[in-house]
Amino acid sequence: MYVVVVYDTAAERNPQILRTCRQYLHHVQRSVFEGALSAAQFKRFQAAVAGVIDTGYDSVLVYTYPPGSVPRREEWGAAQPSPSDIL
Amino acid sequence: MYVVVVYDTAAERNPQILRTCRQYLHHVQRSVFEGALSAAQFKRFQAAVAGVIDTGYDSVLVYTYPPGSVPRREEWGAAQPSPSDIL
Repeated sequence: MYVVVVYDTAAERNPQILRTCRQYLHHVQRSVFEGALSAAQFKRFQAAVAGVIDTGYDSVLVYTYPPGSVPRREEWGAAQPSPSDIL
Repeated sequence: MYVVVVYDTAAERNPQILRTCRQYLHHVQRSVFEGALSAAQFKRFQAAVAGVIDTGYDSVLVYTYPPGSVPRREEWGAAQPSPSDIL
């Protein structure tokens, strides 16, 4: 399945969630990641995210697309800097 | 069509992009909005966003879903505070 992930975490946890998302997905905007994951990868990713966020404070939105379909995405404004520029 | 919008703008422009998005869509996370728009509304929204962002710096990602389909969204972590708490 294809996923789009958007996180809103406390600043002190941003490096960990960023590192976790980078292990599984492509970085497309400051706190937005995308990519295709198998069901098993999705479960491991979910567990990894749960391990770095404060579930009482941080928010992670996960949009999933059925197998074989990918999001139609438009980019308005500046093309994103290369992910390494974004913390 | 249904849209999911994620913006990453310079801090000084956040209030304007927030106000613009609120006029058209539902606020679901700090810089994430969702909602159904007609083709005409989508065009007006796009023009309104172009009017408040710096297209050389700010980034707005717009995920569109074909008519009749809506995203499957999971929320990990904290349920979002009411939109008015989020600037």
